[in-house]
Amino acid sequence: MLHTRMTKRYLFKAAGTAALGVAGAGMVARRPVADAQTSDLLTVAKSRGLSPDEARAALATYVPPGKYDEALMFASGGQSGQVLVFGIPSMRLLRVIAVFSPESWQGYGYSDESRSVLRDTSPESVADIPGLTWGDTHHPAISQMNGDYDGEWLFINDKANARMAVISLKDFETKQIVQNPTAAIDHGATVSPNTDYVLESTQYAVPFPRTKYVPLDQEHYNNEYRGVATFWKFDRTRGRIDQAHSFQIELPPYWQDLASFGKGPSEGWVFINSFNTERAIGGTLEHKPPIEIGASANDMDYLHVINWKKAEALVAAGKTTVVNGIKVISLKDAAENGVLYFVPEPKSPHGVDVAPRGDYIVIGGKLDPNATVYSWAKVRQLINAGKSVGKDAYGVPILSFKDAVAAQVKLGLGPLHTNFDDKGNAYTSLFIESAVAKWTLGAPYHSADEAWKVVDKLPVQYNIGHLAAYQGDTAKPMGKYLVAINKWSVDQYKGIGPLRPQNLQLIDISGPKMRMLYAAPVGNAEPHFAEIIPLGKLRAWDVYPPGTNELTMRPDPNAVQPGKERIARHGKTVEVWMTAMRSHYTPDHIVANKGDKVVIHITNIEQALDATHGFAVHAYNINLSLEPGKVETITFTADRPGVFPYYCTEFCSALHLEMAGYLEVKP
Amino acid sequence: MLHTRMTKRYLFKAAGTAALGVAGAGMVARRPVADAQTSDLLTVAKSRGLSPDEARAALATYVPPGKYDEALMFASGGQSGQVLVFGIPSMRLLRVIAVFSPESWQGYGYSDESRSVLRDTSPESVADIPGLTWGDTHHPAISQMNGDYDGEWLFINDKANARMAVISLKDFETKQIVQNPTAAIDHGATVSPNTDYVLESTQYAVPFPRTKYVPLDQEHYNNEYRGVATFWKFDRTRGRIDQAHSFQIELPPYWQDLASFGKGPSEGWVFINSFNTERAIGGTLEHKPPIEIGASANDMDYLHVINWKKAEALVAAGKTTVVNGIKVISLKDAAENGVLYFVPEPKSPHGVDVAPRGDYIVIGGKLDPNATVYSWAKVRQLINAGKSVGKDAYGVPILSFKDAVAAQVKLGLGPLHTNFDDKGNAYTSLFIESAVAKWTLGAPYHSADEAWKVVDKLPVQYNIGHLAAYQGDTAKPMGKYLVAINKWSVDQYKGIGPLRPQNLQLIDISGPKMRMLYAAPVGNAEPHFAEIIPLGKLRAWDVYPPGTNELTMRPDPNAVQPGKERIARHGKTVEVWMTAMRSHYTPDHIVANKGDKVVIHITNIEQALDATHGFAVHAYNINLSLEPGKVETITFTADRPGVFPYYCTEFCSALHLEMAGYLEVKP
Repeated sequence: MLHTRMTKRYLFKAAGTAALGVAGAGMVARRPVADAQTSDLLTVAKSRGLSPDEARAALATYVPPGKYDEALMFASGGQSGQVLVFGIPSMRLLRVIAVFSPESWQGYGYSDESRSVLRDTSPESVADIPGLTWGDTHHPAISQMNGDYDGEWLFINDKANARMAVISLKDFETKQIVQNPTAAIDHGATVSPNTDYVLESTQYAVPFPRTKYVPLDQEHYNNEYRGVATFWKFDRTRGRIDQAHSFQIELPPYWQDLASFGKGPSEGWVFINSFNTERAIGGTLEHKPPIEIGASANDMDYLHVINWKKAEALVAAGKTTVVNGIKVISLKDAAENGVLYFVPEPKSPHGVDVAPRGDYIVIGGKLDPNATVYSWAKVRQLINAGKSVGKDAYGVPILSFKDAVAAQVKLGLGPLHTNFDDKGNAYTSLFIESAVAKWTLGAPYHSADEAWKVVDKLPVQYNIGHLAAYQGDTAKPMGKYLVAINKWSVDQYKGIGPLRPQNLQLIDISGPKMRMLYAAPVGNAEPHFAEIIPLGKLRAWDVYPPGTNELTMRPDPNAVQPGKERIARHGKTVEVWMTAMRSHYTPDHIVANKGDKVVIHITNIEQALDATHGFAVHAYNINLSLEPGKVETITFTADRPGVFPYYCTEFCSALHLEMAGYLEVKP
Repeated sequence: MLHTRMTKRYLFKAAGTAALGVAGAGMVARRPVADAQTSDLLTVAKSRGLSPDEARAALATYVPPGKYDEALMFASGGQSGQVLVFGIPSMRLLRVIAVFSPESWQGYGYSDESRSVLRDTSPESVADIPGLTWGDTHHPAISQMNGDYDGEWLFINDKANARMAVISLKDFETKQIVQNPTAAIDHGATVSPNTDYVLESTQYAVPFPRTKYVPLDQEHYNNEYRGVATFWKFDRTRGRIDQAHSFQIELPPYWQDLASFGKGPSEGWVFINSFNTERAIGGTLEHKPPIEIGASANDMDYLHVINWKKAEALVAAGKTTVVNGIKVISLKDAAENGVLYFVPEPKSPHGVDVAPRGDYIVIGGKLDPNATVYSWAKVRQLINAGKSVGKDAYGVPILSFKDAVAAQVKLGLGPLHTNFDDKGNAYTSLFIESAVAKWTLGAPYHSADEAWKVVDKLPVQYNIGHLAAYQGDTAKPMGKYLVAINKWSVDQYKGIGPLRPQNLQLIDISGPKMRMLYAAPVGNAEPHFAEIIPLGKLRAWDVYPPGTNELTMRPDPNAVQPGKERIARHGKTVEVWMTAMRSHYTPDHIVANKGDKVVIHITNIEQALDATHGFAVHAYNINLSLEPGKVETITFTADRPGVFPYYCTEFCSALHLEMAGYLEVKP
């Protein structure tokens, strides 16, 4: 039938099927002759009750077997402690990267190497909190050059224990975790435009430093509890945070929150939100107002405006005190030396976001219906002119709200976080309203009559927290896609018990109106924030170069060639240099005496893509993941006598089940 | 344009849009007038280069926001230690159920209740292996009545440490883990048609029992190493495995593998595969053949045919020995009393699968190109007639291969596992060939001339292990869907480093030819096997009844009503009865002295769907997940002095960040 054929040709020009060559001519369209393939297609959509918009969304998001997503989204996993990697637009979960929580599928926390990361043994760090097996990952930050993602590294913080992790995007594995030496709980993590620093901003104030006990009453709280901004120096050559060249700025005991670095005209500055400037400490059992009430009393909190270049200069000039091993600029010095300024901000804000050109700073007050937009030029002018309207209780100069603001744009209920597209539009999540608002920035993005207007709003399901647009927090946003990171799914999934998945929703932002594309449940984590990067910017390894240590990513001194495998005994230590290949281990017998220390270095001598082997030992709580070319070491005490099979946990060949051996531990 | 309008009407009859009422008449189809919505749809498909088959697949699998998948797939997570729940047909990961590995997002392994499950403190069980933090989940099994899933319970085994877990499908949480007292490594887990027993079949032979040391040489191996079939008695009333009424059958030191229960005419029997009947033990470092060679020497292994009703009778008659606390039928008694028979099976098989009516048993030998089909009637006849062709080295009667076989169907390379549809077809995974073969069963499913024929084959990417058809291992398979559980993804995903996701592929089996629908990467687990159940069969709770204990699923004696919260000190113990609601805890201050035992009972007093709260404590490695109505207890020693914020880790309201409190621990 002509019309179906033409439709098909139009639809599937790129595909090329035999039928496409057949030309129909001059038929009247009203009584179509069946074309098997097309009518089959139509039947499917009809039988599944898809609306036109839904069918369009299906076609816009489906990634067929063997084809690739165009972008990756790195999302924090919240209290799972991990990072999640989604494909865009398919929203398929491609990979979980274990960070703060051990994860046996990838052997993370089981090899000596990954145990050393989790135990935080990097020499510069303070690792005084033993036994942590989870984290609350919040703000992933891809490394940047010139304000744009470079695809090399990924940073992520642990809110629960104020830690920062470094992940290599060569092999998607965690390389370092550093513990904040003075702070307890953080929230924000973000990188400077050239990744000189990773900024960790605290959330709940605690005694400064956290290792001190100070009773919790209002007076002690005001005087001895503090917030902290930590500037972790990143050493690109080593691929590690360098604590010796990191520093902190002491902050008042407000509850600081998210942070964004300036760029372009605002480069050298960083902006941190705060709430609970009321310094409420609760007391619910004594019938005092809960913190949620006390912290919401005032109309304004303080946007923290920090000159980090000047802070760096103070550090260089030695104007710091070393506290728990890290250099600290005191609150007094920060306030008196032009490092720290406040601008009032309405009301209990969460997100602070710098526009792509670095000219505007947008905040969303959770209890205020507006996006408040500060002009960096105006803020800079006030600072340059030394104009302040007063000081807070800690001596920090306060700039004039009305003189700093470029616009307030009424968006709706519960504005929370803003990202940007490539056409001068801003997208703000509205938590209470469960919607995304699209609105226009002012000059130079839009002319005066088009500026600061809400142009579209799209409902989401439900209670959106953060959102992530395609490169939407960089100097080069790409438009096209936005992901709503919804905190509640309520009725969107059923039959799965009381613990509901989170609900990510992919939205098409390429046109004038936003379009809902896809709902992706997340039933293993609570993504808090995410960043989206084009696939083409990543240069991940497909396999490890032969004999590579997973931490150093250089040749491992204990790598072994096939034929050179061996077992050596020295004193009470049995040391094994083992190879793994399809489908056997060499050696497949290891004999130890009870109480021996057993050290096994395993080299996966394969180089075929995806030829990963596992190494599990019964009753010894061991499982490794050995990707092609990788070397790992596992050390344990043979404290249980008996015979313990070991076997490959990655289904590697038809004879995978035969890839096994026996560890004998003589009584 | 008429043709596009008509197409749209045809496509979207169910949808109803304003445009649908407009009738075009008599236009020639060759020069279509634009219809905005339809042409938009066509543009999307074209711009994304989708082939007709791919567009069809997109429409066949897409589940729009707010609509539901029609079925759930419960897949093991392999060495992640967990169970994964996918929606069918969207293949979205709806939920991870933590089983053998702690998981902080769901608070599993952090509350007293879930720690008790992981520590395996159920009184009947032997829990002599301390400190396990992972498992290698292999074979999920949904509870059954009359050979059909009933949607009540889910069982899953841990291959690495021979454990069995019980999960409630009311709340999707793990309720019990039992440790096999005599076996080290298992593989199969399956339920009898009415869930009287969960069968755990071992994999690698070890000394019997495993708690004994026996040197590994051929003679000791042959004489003192053993396999075990464990029949775990399931007590539906208590929702727990009852070890006192469970029993084991001692088996030769072949490497047993998967198991399937008979049903219908074969009810009362169970079938277990084996490989390495050669009893190869390797020795690669000494240049002996690796196990993969030694275990592949013979053409035949032994299908184990077990009369479990007779075994039950032997147990009732006291013909057992108690070993490590469990009743064991000796190999000799099993062989001599009609409990255990062997039938030869080619060659190193993995899957053993009973056809829906219980009349055929299908095995796939990994190194044999055939599916070998045994006729239960023939096997039964041989047993009834007392006909055997000999005995193995352990005295087990061997039945005649040729007299037991109904057919051998040549499928291709590496047949592994078979499921069934509702039309008498079998689907077998071909690991080496990377394909699924569809073939016909014999009478009564198909007439003689249609029987035992391969009717279709579909390539998959790559190296398929198990497969799961919709109810495809029950007495009532539903056809329609099949999931290929591919072990290698190789080039199917890129940019994500050397550790590649597994690759599940959804296949449409409703028509005469199989159609590829969807590729779902799994980047956090290695699904080994799965079962697919209609959503409508599940009767999960949406919220917990107020004040419910997560383990007993009954009222918790420490549940507390709002207004009745309290803190009590007795000796060196501080006990807290706390409530959580949006958005505060009562109490929000807790004071302890260093060294105190702190016990906190927390009741989430909400009943709104999805109103889950978390409870994290800085530096104390605590995170709970409190779904609406749930009560959990956490006990810890306040061994670190200082001030420790606690806060809600589930984004619960606009003032979620204010849901916090302070634990003071005085020095």
